[in-house]
Amino acid sequence: MALIGDKEYFKGIGEIKYEGRESDNPLAFKFYNPEQLVAGKTMREHFKFAMAYWHTLCGTGGDPFGPGTKQFPWATSSDAVQAAKEKADAAFEFITKMGFDYYCFHDFDLVDEASTLAESEKRIQEIVEYLKQKQDASGAKLLWGTSNCFSNPRYMNGAASNPNFDVVARAGAQVKIALDATMALDGENYVFWGGREGYMSLLNTNMKLEQDNIGRFLNMAKDYARSQGFKGTFFIEPKPMEPTKHQYDFDAATSINTIREYGLENDFKLNIEVNHATLAQHTFQHELQVAANAGMLGSIDANRGDYQNGWDTDQFPNNVLETTEAMLVFLKSDGLQGGGINFDAKTRRNSTDLEDIFLAHIGGADTFARALILADEVLQKSPYQSLLDKRYSSFQSGKGADYVAGKLSLSDLYDYAGTHGEPEQISGKQELYENILNQYS
Amino acid sequence: MALIGDKEYFKGIGEIKYEGRESDNPLAFKFYNPEQLVAGKTMREHFKFAMAYWHTLCGTGGDPFGPGTKQFPWATSSDAVQAAKEKADAAFEFITKMGFDYYCFHDFDLVDEASTLAESEKRIQEIVEYLKQKQDASGAKLLWGTSNCFSNPRYMNGAASNPNFDVVARAGAQVKIALDATMALDGENYVFWGGREGYMSLLNTNMKLEQDNIGRFLNMAKDYARSQGFKGTFFIEPKPMEPTKHQYDFDAATSINTIREYGLENDFKLNIEVNHATLAQHTFQHELQVAANAGMLGSIDANRGDYQNGWDTDQFPNNVLETTEAMLVFLKSDGLQGGGINFDAKTRRNSTDLEDIFLAHIGGADTFARALILADEVLQKSPYQSLLDKRYSSFQSGKGADYVAGKLSLSDLYDYAGTHGEPEQISGKQELYENILNQYS
Amino acid sequence: MALIGDKEYFKGIGEIKYEGRESDNPLAFKFYNPEQLVAGKTMREHFKFAMAYWHTLCGTGGDPFGPGTKQFPWATSSDAVQAAKEKADAAFEFITKMGFDYYCFHDFDLVDEASTLAESEKRIQEIVEYLKQKQDASGAKLLWGTSNCFSNPRYMNGAASNPNFDVVARAGAQVKIALDATMALDGENYVFWGGREGYMSLLNTNMKLEQDNIGRFLNMAKDYARSQGFKGTFFIEPKPMEPTKHQYDFDAATSINTIREYGLENDFKLNIEVNHATLAQHTFQHELQVAANAGMLGSIDANRGDYQNGWDTDQFPNNVLETTEAMLVFLKSDGLQGGGINFDAKTRRNSTDLEDIFLAHIGGADTFARALILADEVLQKSPYQSLLDKRYSSFQSGKGADYVAGKLSLSDLYDYAGTHGEPEQISGKQELYENILNQYS
Amino acid sequence: MALIGDKEYFKGIGEIKYEGRESDNPLAFKFYNPEQLVAGKTMREHFKFAMAYWHTLCGTGGDPFGPGTKQFPWATSSDAVQAAKEKADAAFEFITKMGFDYYCFHDFDLVDEASTLAESEKRIQEIVEYLKQKQDASGAKLLWGTSNCFSNPRYMNGAASNPNFDVVARAGAQVKIALDATMALDGENYVFWGGREGYMSLLNTNMKLEQDNIGRFLNMAKDYARSQGFKGTFFIEPKPMEPTKHQYDFDAATSINTIREYGLENDFKLNIEVNHATLAQHTFQHELQVAANAGMLGSIDANRGDYQNGWDTDQFPNNVLETTEAMLVFLKSDGLQGGGINFDAKTRRNSTDLEDIFLAHIGGADTFARALILADEVLQKSPYQSLLDKRYSSFQSGKGADYVAGKLSLSDLYDYAGTHGEPEQISGKQELYENILNQYS
Repeated sequence: MALIGDKEYFKGIGEIKYEGRESDNPLAFKFYNPEQLVAGKTMREHFKFAMAYWHTLCGTGGDPFGPGTKQFPWATSSDAVQAAKEKADAAFEFITKMGFDYYCFHDFDLVDEASTLAESEKRIQEIVEYLKQKQDASGAKLLWGTSNCFSNPRYMNGAASNPNFDVVARAGAQVKIALDATMALDGENYVFWGGREGYMSLLNTNMKLEQDNIGRFLNMAKDYARSQGFKGTFFIEPKPMEPTKHQYDFDAATSINTIREYGLENDFKLNIEVNHATLAQHTFQHELQVAANAGMLGSIDANRGDYQNGWDTDQFPNNVLETTEAMLVFLKSDGLQGGGINFDAKTRRNSTDLEDIFLAHIGGADTFARALILADEVLQKSPYQSLLDKRYSSFQSGKGADYVAGKLSLSDLYDYAGTHGEPEQISGKQELYENILNQYS
Repeated sequence: MALIGDKEYFKGIGEIKYEGRESDNPLAFKFYNPEQLVAGKTMREHFKFAMAYWHTLCGTGGDPFGPGTKQFPWATSSDAVQAAKEKADAAFEFITKMGFDYYCFHDFDLVDEASTLAESEKRIQEIVEYLKQKQDASGAKLLWGTSNCFSNPRYMNGAASNPNFDVVARAGAQVKIALDATMALDGENYVFWGGREGYMSLLNTNMKLEQDNIGRFLNMAKDYARSQGFKGTFFIEPKPMEPTKHQYDFDAATSINTIREYGLENDFKLNIEVNHATLAQHTFQHELQVAANAGMLGSIDANRGDYQNGWDTDQFPNNVLETTEAMLVFLKSDGLQGGGINFDAKTRRNSTDLEDIFLAHIGGADTFARALILADEVLQKSPYQSLLDKRYSSFQSGKGADYVAGKLSLSDLYDYAGTHGEPEQISGKQELYENILNQYS
Repeated sequence: MALIGDKEYFKGIGEIKYEGRESDNPLAFKFYNPEQLVAGKTMREHFKFAMAYWHTLCGTGGDPFGPGTKQFPWATSSDAVQAAKEKADAAFEFITKMGFDYYCFHDFDLVDEASTLAESEKRIQEIVEYLKQKQDASGAKLLWGTSNCFSNPRYMNGAASNPNFDVVARAGAQVKIALDATMALDGENYVFWGGREGYMSLLNTNMKLEQDNIGRFLNMAKDYARSQGFKGTFFIEPKPMEPTKHQYDFDAATSINTIREYGLENDFKLNIEVNHATLAQHTFQHELQVAANAGMLGSIDANRGDYQNGWDTDQFPNNVLETTEAMLVFLKSDGLQGGGINFDAKTRRNSTDLEDIFLAHIGGADTFARALILADEVLQKSPYQSLLDKRYSSFQSGKGADYVAGKLSLSDLYDYAGTHGEPEQISGKQELYENILNQYS
Repeated sequence: MALIGDKEYFKGIGEIKYEGRESDNPLAFKFYNPEQLVAGKTMREHFKFAMAYWHTLCGTGGDPFGPGTKQFPWATSSDAVQAAKEKADAAFEFITKMGFDYYCFHDFDLVDEASTLAESEKRIQEIVEYLKQKQDASGAKLLWGTSNCFSNPRYMNGAASNPNFDVVARAGAQVKIALDATMALDGENYVFWGGREGYMSLLNTNMKLEQDNIGRFLNMAKDYARSQGFKGTFFIEPKPMEPTKHQYDFDAATSINTIREYGLENDFKLNIEVNHATLAQHTFQHELQVAANAGMLGSIDANRGDYQNGWDTDQFPNNVLETTEAMLVFLKSDGLQGGGINFDAKTRRNSTDLEDIFLAHIGGADTFARALILADEVLQKSPYQSLLDKRYSSFQSGKGADYVAGKLSLSDLYDYAGTHGEPEQISGKQELYENILNQYS
């Protein structure tokens, strides 16, 4: 049920309901039916949809060529904590009207940063108390917290990778406060997105020292949270570039390498963002698969990029075919480990109606819902999986199975090949797989 | 001294000499002076320039829109081994006229593949005997060997990652033969470039099994070679895509992750190619630095891509500024571990004069030579290094040094930040670093 | 009805029928129902699907990293004309089994080029006679002909843009013969794709002369064909790059500029290819719209690229959402002017079953069919068009209409703005449009 | 001589002098020597270097991930006109210390926009009067003016292309005021960069109406300015994307097509920006050449992009090789028609010293200066031009000359080719051209 604060911010918009594909109501789900069972779980359980505090409540549409365009009615008080409470009211009104169960935040999405660290911490503590009440009243939960260590000018040369120890320390302090806030709110996970952890120019950069310092930093943060009883998972969110020329967490494989290098594999997994995947010249499903292969598919930031534009456009997902390919990996990997699906997406700068925020999230949720259903049908009803199993069947028995079991040497392969002649030509049949996907989607 | 076989293939072209920048002779080095000392070593020692057999002797200029254009006088015999010997004559004539010390090959660059494995092996053995003589007569050496497990249609679905064990075995046999050839020729290293180790579509791919199979394959190859006394280094050569949609060895970080995952870190390093770096949205110097940070900067494939074209153009290097940035990393990392600089580059399809091959290699060698000199001057004469050291000096003493030594906790950082106020703003001064580079180059 | 020659090449595959979405038969159309009416025309009439001779009959799967993989049973005779006839038999067997009405060719797709121009012309004339019979027997027609002036090494520096007049003349002769063949076969259109009309390096290029020479060449070709009674339309097919670094017909806007500059606007329109659009950083629908705005939307080369790969992958279309956006432009522009939809697409190198060619074309035709139906539903049943009309309604009356009618001056705008205050903020509602498209597709 | 206002803003920095390559002074030109003659003109005359008001005086370093970092001492007054005067003082102090002769502005770079059109116009008029005095006192001139019709939220759906006539009118009023200001300051040219003239989604866009409206708008602006006696040139500045998904002025060829379509060819030329060129997948030199071929090479916005990042990074030029290739086109096209070289470039967000602005401009000017000298040497001393002339010599006489003169028909080409046999193979010798460029640069 919608949780409305002192003031209703989204007037005229009630709880968004599932009405099915034939509905004429733009403010209804056409495909996302939270309690519908798919592959043994409800959609609600599969997805754990979350609202992103930053775009949804704080993103007024500014871009490098102009300031914000959107007038948010919850952003009017000149008192920081009062403004933060009004924003929280808007947040929980939105979450509960959407029927979502989760939200995610950066520390200073919740409340504006103050001029000193101490005062900032105090503000955070105040709004955390308020959010606890909102959580209790609504049942909504914190999927993950994180710390914005990239916007403030002090981080212009990086946070944990900053060449100046004073800034590293300041980032550490900020992360400690954000961890405390996350734990106070029973946050289920904690995310590191290295917004300016990278370089603008390799010329003025000691990459080795910077990366080692990040490794130390992540270990310290993990040790602190564990010492305070935090049981959740830490996620690294890869991104290849922007705002820096090169972000150290370039993509899933790079981030897994970092996790291994610094001994973090028992505590860290990945939060995969669609648009970050495509900026790294990967498909979304590729990044999911890489993470899943390493046992590190933790969470998803749902959005989409624009294939003709080379920056992070963070649009709401709308391509069912592509999302279906992602949901195939999702279902076959048995879903997410600890995380959920956070709409890290923003309405366009010229989408200035408050209603647009609802329309956008509805479209995004429907895209995932439809894709999940279709992927499940492909797996359950089509010949897809049996074709795939057959393709790799040579490793199920005989010498192929010995190979997988590590029983053969290079000389064994040489001997085998010498007596078996030219291997049979076997079509990869990619077009058949694509047709199957399209027929069922 | 030029080693000419029964027939001189590059008539009218003698040994290429260093004549300095003012020379009007297009067939002279303007900057590459093999015996010139730079940073304590001769250019010859720094670079270990190698000729790539495939482009230089075999690449007739075909592309997806037309067949080869180049008529090579060494490719006329209808007898495979005889043709191979003539090609070897041309190879050593070229190497010795260029004054290079090294060459690199794929197995079937040396001689055409036969219709059976046994016959192919026999051909390889014959030409290896011939090459031994050429090496002895010229003093030229084998920088590395490799096996072409991507051109033959049997590898259309991959080699070590093939879904069919029979093909995996055949690839294993081929690699064994190539390793034997490399060892017979005292090859200093051995390279794996996974030409079709990747996927065309994730839909029909079991990525986890394929990658694990590659891991097993690399271990088998390594174990075999070590058992035969091979002392050289194995290199993985990253490439992000092409011919497959996604190559498993996407970039340096991904390949290092693979090396770690499969326990290969004591035997494997990286062979970094410029154009592969830029296809992966990295600079060349970035990839060198990533490899160096992991202690895996093994070798270089020198070429360049075209920033407006999205495929591997393999052009000869010509951008001194960019190469200087790479040589800064090269010099600061103390050069290459085991490898050298192989010109994996081809003249354009419409560069059809035999002379063009010389002109291209001269331009490439001059670019590296000039860049090395300039990078050394930047390091020796300019304020570059002291600026950089100063930038990171906060980690040299006090709490910064404690941080690097692992003596601090997150709470320590919190305490430090709480008592130190807002960190000082320190300009990154990127433009100053760029100006210094330009002034000295 | 299937037209089978002396030998049936696609044994076991009969005529492909529409069986609807629920069919389990991979060799049936699920969505393409040729006689189904959509927006007042049958699908057959809307699309005029054509088979591309080059990929379908000649493309054996070679790429820059390996030779062809596909064994075509019609490519066995050592006699060029006999082989050509067998290929023609296979072509018409394929077209008629698919139920298509059209085909397209380059001159030397039909028959291998001979060693002299005269002998090549003779071969072309012979196969043209044979094709006439096949056309008569099947009812299939030639959508367009074109000349391959890019594969032969003589065109390595360009054809009409070649720096050597002798090559320009040779290209002219070849185009004359191809025009004669097209006219002899009642070809409905003629295409110019400038395969090597561009440059590899601007350094060695006189771009102005080359482009002016192309302008002259196109005029000559047009004048000749018109003098011979050709009534069809000429198409330029834009492509931004590959094989050259820069192709002169970069995209639709560039090609329209060329058409205008050289006075060809009464005879030339555009043939828009999907993958060429995306290589030029445009969507397919963008290029269609640009062409339609200029009255030059002539024909379509249907395929798709890979958003992560920077070369022309020419895959078969499979993304219904994207194709629906294209079909919106298609329907609103009243379809194609003179042309049709030619499957300029190839099965993957590792799709080696003959059956795969059918599966791929079925998938492509189904994608377009489904997209057409969906686009029509969006236009007929959804609020899409009325939303769009309302968005621009200010230009329907009052001062807005005066503006469109050219009745206002800059001073009038100044006066109007001075008396009207700040304009109302009106949301672009992009997410609503996207949701509508998804609900109906 | 430096023109300093009531307060000196760049204390400790005097006039920047040419000191030559060996100078250790980072605040001196190493290559830009204003009075040095190159190819018959001084560098000062060739380049007409201009300061860009927006980046240099207004750009505090904000990006999508954080606010500005730079504290500008001229941006402190709360009175808009007073702040504008202080900014103007800083502008002319900078220009005169750099020894530049020109500056460029958007209307609301000069002074903050007010809440009404009338008040904004009044502010502009006041600051224009002040700038006249600064121009008189310093001798510095206005290279071009333009109007910022993209930052204000009212332009979120476009300016001249806005779906709402009220916004189009408001843009018209703003352009009239900016034209008046430009003319009052004897501006030599006027620029249109269509910051939001394009679309975010084709779905909600009537592209034809929007483009026609732009055509009408440009004609109105031109007619007004001409009626007021403006003699300068209008420039369109192409950009392919950002902030919109697709900008209508995609690249030079597209913009020339627009100019032709709307009958503007007698009044409009192009302002080519380096980073916009590369975002459009062109080299800078390509765009210069396209403009020059059409007689429309008007002006240059100097900067550079990052080849690995897909947005407008607007860095200062530093690649001499690439700039030399551009200067070859520049010199061969006889320079710019009416315009100059405006540094549309910004120091990095983390370059926060005031000094950095000088260092950056010095580096940019030096890059152009060195490139000009080198290009001139290539043209004067190397075999470059004669090689190029020889390459196209077949069109200087005989049938080739007849071809260029339009005297031949397609049948003539056919006859010629029939009697001339296979054309000679002529190498394009790209590597030789590249070597020459490198030897001389």
